[in-house]
Amino acid sequence: MGDQWNALRVGPRILRPGTAGGPLAGRVFAVKDLIDVAGQTIGGGNPELLAERKPAEQDAPVVAALLEAGASCVGITQTDELAFSLTGVNRHYPAPVNPRHPDRVTGGSSSGSAAAVAAGLVPFALGTDTGGSIRVPASYCGLVGVRPTHGALPLDGVLRLAPSFDTVGWLAADVRTAAEVGRVLLPPADGTPAPARVVVLEETLAEVTGEVAAAVTHWAGRLAEAWSLPLRRTALGTSLDEWLTVFRTIQCAEAWAERGAWIEAHPGALAPEVEARFRAGAHGDAAAVEAARRRRAELSAELDRLLGEGTLVVLPSASGPAPLREPLLAGDPEAAAANERVRTATLRLTSLGGLSGAPVVGLPLAEAEGAALGVSVLGPRGADRLLLDLAEALPAEWLPQPPDPAREELVAAFYRYEEALVSNDVPTLIELFAPGPDTIRFGPADAAYGADEIAAFRRARPATDLERELVRYDVRIIAPGAGIASTEFVRAGSGRRGRQTQTWKRHPDGWKVELAHVSLLPG
Amino acid sequence: MGDQWNALRVGPRILRPGTAGGPLAGRVFAVKDLIDVAGQTIGGGNPELLAERKPAEQDAPVVAALLEAGASCVGITQTDELAFSLTGVNRHYPAPVNPRHPDRVTGGSSSGSAAAVAAGLVPFALGTDTGGSIRVPASYCGLVGVRPTHGALPLDGVLRLAPSFDTVGWLAADVRTAAEVGRVLLPPADGTPAPARVVVLEETLAEVTGEVAAAVTHWAGRLAEAWSLPLRRTALGTSLDEWLTVFRTIQCAEAWAERGAWIEAHPGALAPEVEARFRAGAHGDAAAVEAARRRRAELSAELDRLLGEGTLVVLPSASGPAPLREPLLAGDPEAAAANERVRTATLRLTSLGGLSGAPVVGLPLAEAEGAALGVSVLGPRGADRLLLDLAEALPAEWLPQPPDPAREELVAAFYRYEEALVSNDVPTLIELFAPGPDTIRFGPADAAYGADEIAAFRRARPATDLERELVRYDVRIIAPGAGIASTEFVRAGSGRRGRQTQTWKRHPDGWKVELAHVSLLPG
Repeated sequence: MGDQWNALRVGPRILRPGTAGGPLAGRVFAVKDLIDVAGQTIGGGNPELLAERKPAEQDAPVVAALLEAGASCVGITQTDELAFSLTGVNRHYPAPVNPRHPDRVTGGSSSGSAAAVAAGLVPFALGTDTGGSIRVPASYCGLVGVRPTHGALPLDGVLRLAPSFDTVGWLAADVRTAAEVGRVLLPPADGTPAPARVVVLEETLAEVTGEVAAAVTHWAGRLAEAWSLPLRRTALGTSLDEWLTVFRTIQCAEAWAERGAWIEAHPGALAPEVEARFRAGAHGDAAAVEAARRRRAELSAELDRLLGEGTLVVLPSASGPAPLREPLLAGDPEAAAANERVRTATLRLTSLGGLSGAPVVGLPLAEAEGAALGVSVLGPRGADRLLLDLAEALPAEWLPQPPDPAREELVAAFYRYEEALVSNDVPTLIELFAPGPDTIRFGPADAAYGADEIAAFRRARPATDLERELVRYDVRIIAPGAGIASTEFVRAGSGRRGRQTQTWKRHPDGWKVELAHVSLLPG
Repeated sequence: MGDQWNALRVGPRILRPGTAGGPLAGRVFAVKDLIDVAGQTIGGGNPELLAERKPAEQDAPVVAALLEAGASCVGITQTDELAFSLTGVNRHYPAPVNPRHPDRVTGGSSSGSAAAVAAGLVPFALGTDTGGSIRVPASYCGLVGVRPTHGALPLDGVLRLAPSFDTVGWLAADVRTAAEVGRVLLPPADGTPAPARVVVLEETLAEVTGEVAAAVTHWAGRLAEAWSLPLRRTALGTSLDEWLTVFRTIQCAEAWAERGAWIEAHPGALAPEVEARFRAGAHGDAAAVEAARRRRAELSAELDRLLGEGTLVVLPSASGPAPLREPLLAGDPEAAAANERVRTATLRLTSLGGLSGAPVVGLPLAEAEGAALGVSVLGPRGADRLLLDLAEALPAEWLPQPPDPAREELVAAFYRYEEALVSNDVPTLIELFAPGPDTIRFGPADAAYGADEIAAFRRARPATDLERELVRYDVRIIAPGAGIASTEFVRAGSGRRGRQTQTWKRHPDGWKVELAHVSLLPG
């Protein structure tokens, strides 16, 4: 089962509360189903793997750092299977919906993270990016995507795909939030070269339609102008096909080394097209892989030499806008083949960052075919903070604005309520309802008027059949200081379906429910 | 059945919409079950009388004038039986609750009008006052009560009790509203003498406890000071017992003349104590009544002479604060006897206005025994507008403030929704929900997202079992531009009990529902 976004496999509710204070205090985030969250079992988008694993005993360091900075983890997001896809479709789970373009896929593999951020469930979410798994869904969903310098963030507690490319990064609704997360997670920017020039590589434009090339060229010019940097258009001199081949050879070998034994032991566990990608590395010629590794070093060094210090490469985040959703979900063979071509074209672009380990920030600046298209800025290794600073310095009207803080607070309160409900945390439930005689709660067969009656109901309630899955929820501000939350839920124990509506008011000490109504569907 | 206030016998819903524009545009009012409202059957607080009568073909002129001024009629209020009581208890119907003092009675006979205004269901309500039936409940519930000059307002379409005393008047939450209603209903103030002095009559203070006397004396002084008038304390020179005897003699004779034949034809229809009051006039000696009429003219003329033109008499609106509710409802004989003494003591005071036909405005200024106590200002006949002007000119902090206009608008929208619902007025129902895709309505077994889905639901809905009685409802503003309404209802056709919650937002063209949730109780 899923909700209207299919963004989360677990949540939304406070899974791990942030510590008090800190630069991300009061904010919420979600975590890709590849990264450990203490108490949660991470499945990597595969149900058999999920069933075998145990709940994480501790948070991955990236998660721990965000919690320490005050943010609360409220969900585990869907991922493409074992992160080995760029599409946003995982046949074991309902496909996340692209809130920006519901008729198009989200992209992947950080598909649920992208959907969650774009739907406004969270202002940012952790993902991983091996060959584009953050940059592509950010591009398709109109988000900021950050793939840090390879190795900048620890991969402890993260399911690997191809370790020499794997990164943990994040998707955010806006550049300010993206930069705030960066200031928490990234190492200090020691000795980063000053930005010197903006470069567009001919080879990247040759990969895409004229419309995409024109859009990216246009935005490269505007970025250079905004940053007061010269704009250079030049050729890499090496075919992107070669970059792609090297990338794929190493990725497949590493992926098989990582997961091959498990795959052999679990026949039929993976979707065939995903298994095929892994198996492409199964019978790899060790010498060929070694040759690819050597070539990788050369290509990366060549890129460094060509570009020089302080160069910012501007390129499309993906080969084009998101493919249409329906034909892909319907299993249309033509759509699948077209999607394979899209994947290959995108990997040619994203392998620049992948092979070189350079940081890339994808910005939701452009459009093509009337849909969102990210513009990636790739900088020298270690320039992660610089890239985010530059993004933050752009004219505000170019980019999505930060989420309404009042709504963020309200959503956080809603998640807190949800967690308190399923865990029958009576003091928190009482705290989240407005004090005084005017608060009203209608239950399926009971009515309570005033905070005292509601508290008495909470205390007397048997703690059974409380766990539930939200199959749809909507939270919004309707006026300054007033918001509404509506949910359709299924109780986990009984399977009973029901609805909940809440009207919230902002009190001096936070959002409180003024009016609540819970009902169960007949049957 | 009743709601939490037992204030209304019919409603709350728009029974008669006001015409557009006008000085009372957008305001709502309720009407005592003694005054014709077109389409409604008026029962005078007696179920047998109600069952015999037909719906009124036209509005009483007082109702018509309010509708013409833009106000909408939203309810028929409970009354003490045939208006012949000052207590607020009618054994045929649940007793209205005094919102100001739930442990005390409302007073009567305009009991439901007082409860409706004090509960904030309406900013004002029509009542009638023969021997105190507006002044007393206004006093007990902390309201402004207006008994106009006898004959100033037409009594057409009004059930009579004792015509030579009967008046139609109103109760209001605040003096501004009371004055606004007065400017619509009252005849022009031709030749009203200027206010010249404030007078307290010794006899009125002798009727009450020291606490009440002190409070009224105190407020007489403050009123005189506020109006820059001299304060005089003087004696009437005639015993109030005599005023009371004359009043009762005439009242009982008139009441029996009015209703005796009907009472004889309906044995057992009236509560025994009410029937006894009527029967006190049944065997009256015609000569004694005639003598009382002559004495009445003398007393009234004496009062005029004593006081002179422009005199304002300040007196307690009732002999004390409202009696306790529970003993009276329980039928405790001691409580009934005590209440009879209270009634007699109060009638001694109110008969000054009753016999003389002078206008009286009761103001919620004082307290006694920790409960509300009205201070009445009695002026020369025809000085109705002057009394209201003087009340409006008092320091704002002395008196209750006018209701929040935003809440008044919201309540009016809520009543409009209720009327549209029971009459299946689909265009109005659609108009009262917010347009756009974010509006949500949960029904007992259905969910509609967005105005289009909600409108489709309305159009497809079978128009059966829509009529319902509200057994509880609460409407309030929670933040600027945001309000909530909750109801518990019983469907008239099926008897199914249910709940409805609505979150409203103020749009440029009025309040609209953003989120609605309707559920039915099991069974």
